[in-house]
Amino acid sequence: MKRKQLLEAVREQITKHRYEHTLGVVDTAIRLADKYGADKEKAETAAILHDYCKFWPEDKMREIIENTPVIPKDLLEYDKELWHAHVGAEVVRSELGIEDEEVLDAIRYHTSGRENMTLLEKIVCLADYIEPGRQFPGVDELRAAAEEDLDRALAKGLGGTITFLVNREKRIYPLTVLARNSLIKPKTKNAQEEEKRI
Amino acid sequence: MKRKQLLEAVREQITKHRYEHTLGVVDTAIRLADKYGADKEKAETAAILHDYCKFWPEDKMREIIENTPVIPKDLLEYDKELWHAHVGAEVVRSELGIEDEEVLDAIRYHTSGRENMTLLEKIVCLADYIEPGRQFPGVDELRAAAEEDLDRALAKGLGGTITFLVNREKRIYPLTVLARNSLIKPKTKNAQEEEKRI
Repeated sequence: MKRKQLLEAVREQITKHRYEHTLGVVDTAIRLADKYGADKEKAETAAILHDYCKFWPEDKMREIIENTPVIPKDLLEYDKELWHAHVGAEVVRSELGIEDEEVLDAIRYHTSGRENMTLLEKIVCLADYIEPGRQFPGVDELRAAAEEDLDRALAKGLGGTITFLVNREKRIYPLTVLARNSLIKPKTKNAQEEEKRI
Repeated sequence: MKRKQLLEAVREQITKHRYEHTLGVVDTAIRLADKYGADKEKAETAAILHDYCKFWPEDKMREIIENTPVIPKDLLEYDKELWHAHVGAEVVRSELGIEDEEVLDAIRYHTSGRENMTLLEKIVCLADYIEPGRQFPGVDELRAAAEEDLDRALAKGLGGTITFLVNREKRIYPLTVLARNSLIKPKTKNAQEEEKRI
């Protein structure tokens, strides 16, 4: 399927507002792929499809999670916002014939992240945080960080999600913490000493 | 060993300021044990000894972590603030002859927490957050929560630690997230619907 057909397919699944968000993620993901040396075509496909199941009914998503062996069942114990990513990866495979595992993983982990993310996964996940339509406290700082250091920017984005869940007294999906941890380089002893002196 | 001897032993290991903090944790832990039905004597012992190794040199703690099979080695990849709790449990066992496993676990997990904490562990961990000498944004809200709901208060305390680490761009020890998650009851469908209407 070509870009136009994929966009038409996703437009039928989501709201107008979310479609505009998707177009923002597509532009941002292609730009980040160009900047950091990822495959632009894969970034585009994953970005177009990342929210394919965003508005699917909870019961339908639950059924797919329960009946699809590769989807981790512990998702059901956490925020529903995480579900559409894993469900979406399976649905675009079966409904749209997307078979590229790198693209499917970028869709699958675009909300939770995971330990040791691929470059493509990082780009789609970060593009989702910083596309031009996003407005939340700290988004401009995140956009600036994205121009400097992909890992640091994504760690900040995931950190924002974690803080959001803490403030709302909601559970945190452990994979998101592992994703963020794996993006943060342990400080050297010198850097720690430096910090103490400040 | 009696209270007086334990206090003398710990006083030699820590700063004056930290000793005063310890006395605050002891009073608070006994009060919480009384309120929530835990063993007051065990709460007292664990509280007296919880920071026994707080000021031990990093290299000495690292050596004990590396050479003690029961201490998880992944601690070395995370904030050093976590080390003294696990090291302390082993040291008070060997140096002071503390053999009560419930008391040792309350010392061991007083900083990180863990999944499905015992009542005693919860009490010592929460007392450490809210003893009268503590001053940080939100501590009064935490003290009020401690009077109402032990689990919710501790989840808020651990959430504060998680936010602190996010703001400082530091890694989060996964066990702390699992501890907090296990203290938060999943919302019922009705509560979720209620939330949507607000």
